[in-house]
Amino acid sequence: MLTLAGVLPPIPTPFDADGDVDEDALARNLAFLSRFLLSGYVVLGSNGESVHLTESEKLRLIESVRGIAPDDRAVVAGTGLFSTRATIALTQSAAKAGADAALVLPPFYYRGQMTSDALRDHFVAIADASAIPVLIYNMPANTSIDLPADLLCELSSHENIAGLKDSSGNMAKLAELRSRVNPGFALLAGSAGFFLPALSAGAVGGVLALANIAPDACLEIDSLAKNGDWDAARRVQNRLARANRAVTRQWGVPALKAAMDLLGLRGGLPRSPLMPLSTEYRQELASILAEAGIHHAKEIE
Amino acid sequence: MLTLAGVLPPIPTPFDADGDVDEDALARNLAFLSRFLLSGYVVLGSNGESVHLTESEKLRLIESVRGIAPDDRAVVAGTGLFSTRATIALTQSAAKAGADAALVLPPFYYRGQMTSDALRDHFVAIADASAIPVLIYNMPANTSIDLPADLLCELSSHENIAGLKDSSGNMAKLAELRSRVNPGFALLAGSAGFFLPALSAGAVGGVLALANIAPDACLEIDSLAKNGDWDAARRVQNRLARANRAVTRQWGVPALKAAMDLLGLRGGLPRSPLMPLSTEYRQELASILAEAGIHHAKEIE
Amino acid sequence: MLTLAGVLPPIPTPFDADGDVDEDALARNLAFLSRFLLSGYVVLGSNGESVHLTESEKLRLIESVRGIAPDDRAVVAGTGLFSTRATIALTQSAAKAGADAALVLPPFYYRGQMTSDALRDHFVAIADASAIPVLIYNMPANTSIDLPADLLCELSSHENIAGLKDSSGNMAKLAELRSRVNPGFALLAGSAGFFLPALSAGAVGGVLALANIAPDACLEIDSLAKNGDWDAARRVQNRLARANRAVTRQWGVPALKAAMDLLGLRGGLPRSPLMPLSTEYRQELASILAEAGIHHAKEIE
Amino acid sequence: MLTLAGVLPPIPTPFDADGDVDEDALARNLAFLSRFLLSGYVVLGSNGESVHLTESEKLRLIESVRGIAPDDRAVVAGTGLFSTRATIALTQSAAKAGADAALVLPPFYYRGQMTSDALRDHFVAIADASAIPVLIYNMPANTSIDLPADLLCELSSHENIAGLKDSSGNMAKLAELRSRVNPGFALLAGSAGFFLPALSAGAVGGVLALANIAPDACLEIDSLAKNGDWDAARRVQNRLARANRAVTRQWGVPALKAAMDLLGLRGGLPRSPLMPLSTEYRQELASILAEAGIHHAKEIE
Repeated sequence: MLTLAGVLPPIPTPFDADGDVDEDALARNLAFLSRFLLSGYVVLGSNGESVHLTESEKLRLIESVRGIAPDDRAVVAGTGLFSTRATIALTQSAAKAGADAALVLPPFYYRGQMTSDALRDHFVAIADASAIPVLIYNMPANTSIDLPADLLCELSSHENIAGLKDSSGNMAKLAELRSRVNPGFALLAGSAGFFLPALSAGAVGGVLALANIAPDACLEIDSLAKNGDWDAARRVQNRLARANRAVTRQWGVPALKAAMDLLGLRGGLPRSPLMPLSTEYRQELASILAEAGIHHAKEIE
Repeated sequence: MLTLAGVLPPIPTPFDADGDVDEDALARNLAFLSRFLLSGYVVLGSNGESVHLTESEKLRLIESVRGIAPDDRAVVAGTGLFSTRATIALTQSAAKAGADAALVLPPFYYRGQMTSDALRDHFVAIADASAIPVLIYNMPANTSIDLPADLLCELSSHENIAGLKDSSGNMAKLAELRSRVNPGFALLAGSAGFFLPALSAGAVGGVLALANIAPDACLEIDSLAKNGDWDAARRVQNRLARANRAVTRQWGVPALKAAMDLLGLRGGLPRSPLMPLSTEYRQELASILAEAGIHHAKEIE
Repeated sequence: MLTLAGVLPPIPTPFDADGDVDEDALARNLAFLSRFLLSGYVVLGSNGESVHLTESEKLRLIESVRGIAPDDRAVVAGTGLFSTRATIALTQSAAKAGADAALVLPPFYYRGQMTSDALRDHFVAIADASAIPVLIYNMPANTSIDLPADLLCELSSHENIAGLKDSSGNMAKLAELRSRVNPGFALLAGSAGFFLPALSAGAVGGVLALANIAPDACLEIDSLAKNGDWDAARRVQNRLARANRAVTRQWGVPALKAAMDLLGLRGGLPRSPLMPLSTEYRQELASILAEAGIHHAKEIE
Repeated sequence: MLTLAGVLPPIPTPFDADGDVDEDALARNLAFLSRFLLSGYVVLGSNGESVHLTESEKLRLIESVRGIAPDDRAVVAGTGLFSTRATIALTQSAAKAGADAALVLPPFYYRGQMTSDALRDHFVAIADASAIPVLIYNMPANTSIDLPADLLCELSSHENIAGLKDSSGNMAKLAELRSRVNPGFALLAGSAGFFLPALSAGAVGGVLALANIAPDACLEIDSLAKNGDWDAARRVQNRLARANRAVTRQWGVPALKAAMDLLGLRGGLPRSPLMPLSTEYRQELASILAEAGIHHAKEIE
């Protein structure tokens, strides 16, 4: 039985010098992550450059991660595409490839037409057709669609819609959702920048890019909060804030990959059109990581 | 010595049947609020329809509120106007009228030109010229300007800039600010919708529209959190979430005033172009208040 | 009988070294403009820094411009404020001070509540109470409100609403309006950047910041188009495009004032928080003006 | 030698009752369009639901349209995908399938990272690798990216970048581009709503959804303008404005398809998540088409 809670890193997809998926690098990164009590891994999310991958690359990645990950860790795969039929097909393939749950972005190309009716029908059709639970992925910064509270409440009652990853950081909405949806519906923070605030509002965990480079600190926030030590949790949360912004909103995936490289993991280059982090920013990033207390990942040696 | 912390309602400005400021209604509302351990009152904020008031109405309101409010409650007055010189003049007049601090919105008409340099010079000039401390007011929903973290950090070091009221609800920024500004710089949540999350990130209080109609519940969140009972705080926070949205983002000042009327306070009508809440929405609002456990304000009788 | 057509510059408000309104500079600029067949002047628009002026400064400016301007030139005064009652009062005062028409921005502070109903009531109340015709001012870049086509069609039937200054540059809407409103409703382009396109869609003139520094070229576009020589008009229009962007969207009022100074007129400094154009941009601006063929204003000598 | 000018309809992709591509319907629609002096067809654009099609469906569509279209009509295929490498691959396949030019949308998922540098490298890499000319597709309403004038000027000098389809409707930018790019760089209007204004600013044609249902009227605007009869052109342009909005911004692809059905063509249903136009809107659409003088497509019988 899948439990969506705790900390799940959305893992970047490493590429080799030719720009192809680098399975060795992936294995090495996962070996590092395996030392921490993470609840699972998200593959094919925004940090995984899902939109830069072919269908066969996507399925192969799910298989690889599922093959490497301990059995008790959930493998959640991003499967949202622009059409309902393609999303259903990919979700079904992802389930066969070993995914435990599907993370589904709203279809955002025709956003002028994406009424609550259209979005409801889309998510319901996918949830109806999927063998694995669906996690809704609200990501306005990339999609320009912000799923409304009323729609999310309605969708939460579908037996195969297990939760929401919210990257909007709208705590008022999260608090309202917590008071309106049933207790089993999992609310997950979409960024470490507001992880503790989200926990305070009723989130049960987070899908946190920062957990790729600072899994221990992310887990610490979670356990301190769940043990009632909010002051200590705040100190960790706030110490990480600047670093989290650097590898998310400010410089994005290229910075997360650069940070992994700086820490001895295997980030590598993003696929074009994403550009490698510049040398100047890389130096600034190194300082920011040091100030946040994010150090060389000794565990991997 | 002014302490900006705890709960401060941004009080609406009541108007009589002719559309003029209704001092009796104001006194009655303040009498109700005086029964609760609020830290102070914000006059001339967004909920006070500051933009709908003449300069003399503004100064008279400050005098009235200062005259009625207990001495130990801060009276914070919104004084932000479009030009630096006018803002300075109003801030100085507000101080003479009895305001303890000035809440200053960024000038947002020429927002294409509002670089960090321009905004810094504006706020510094006001803080330099003001006899009372300045509280920066970040309110992107109304101004389309979201003050950047780096600018706020810089401004926080000015000895006469006492804090920030943040209505953006961006917890990642609040957490980053908390880790970067000096401890005495007051971070205040700008809405009850994210009050507890803001406290979790290091806010010391909130300027909460909802505190006009549910001061007890707002204070309860604050004290529960400060006493470490976050689970109980969350239950209060989340119970209020839907009601808070109704009187802020969804229906705005007209709904806050309607809620006050429904509860036995004196909200009255907003000034045009704001329209009175429709009968239909008023009924819906009554249900929402009831569900949130916000009842008739017995204290005023 | 007022005719709103042709070219009207929205005149900047010059300030002296103390930051006060400089009547001499104003007179000098108007003397320059008087040599061209402009239809009138807009005072207290966005370029006039209306939001930076006190009420008495505003009324004095209207009187001054009306006093200096030839009788056959319309003086249009910006009178939009945030409340309906204040806008009515200022519009009435503006009429007494000599304005021939009022240019009214929608009230944009509570934009979440500015439904078509609210906006309609606001504009109708003003038009009902005004002794002079009202020109609606659609300016989404500064107000974040884009008045909908259906609302504008409805308002166009009011006998005291004479037209629309549209700064959005939405030609599809302009074309739709032209086909739906009565022929007497004046559609005016709000920027020289799209003056010829707007004329092609049925505009009858424009309120053009560029007409402060290149009145001849703006008038040339108008007359060439009205005489059917669209190819020649296009050559003028496109030659001005880069310069127009520099003094509007890119660098705004400070650049328009700097351009006036560079050309021998009296622009001077904007009021803070607007910052003077930097030395670097001033040099770039000089090149852009030269490339656009906008030369020293010999007429003023 | 390809000439990108005149009127090109972006053809919708018809689906049969099972939701599969309906080649018969496509042929019938193209037979109708073949009676008009259109310059070519755009397949796989926004109206073609490119994002809803598989790669094999896309290539098959290009082959079909190329097979049916007269030799002298350009077949332009939308090939923009999120990664540079996938866009290059699809562009090369499209060329082999018979496309005469590629219409390339900017990659918009990681829009926070899409600096001018990143976008330049992306478009240059595609243009370098493509056997057919590239047409840049600026579509901010769907992508939230508005390509800057300076970047477009720079890209216009690439020998394999043939022009720009601009759907933003920003005429100031179009005029500036016309004055800065070389004369051979084709500027095409992206919507009939601003077709005549775009021609006035120097566009040489348009990719017009409306040309699917009113090709004659669209061609009339083009020829009247090119013959110097701008008054007559304006009458046609403005008569179409309301109808154009209905099948584009207001109700989108579902309405364009419904309009085709109403006129005797074969629009059919969109793929989900796009919803069929409701019965109510369909009736309203029928009235709007009638008012615009868009009648039953007799030519197809």
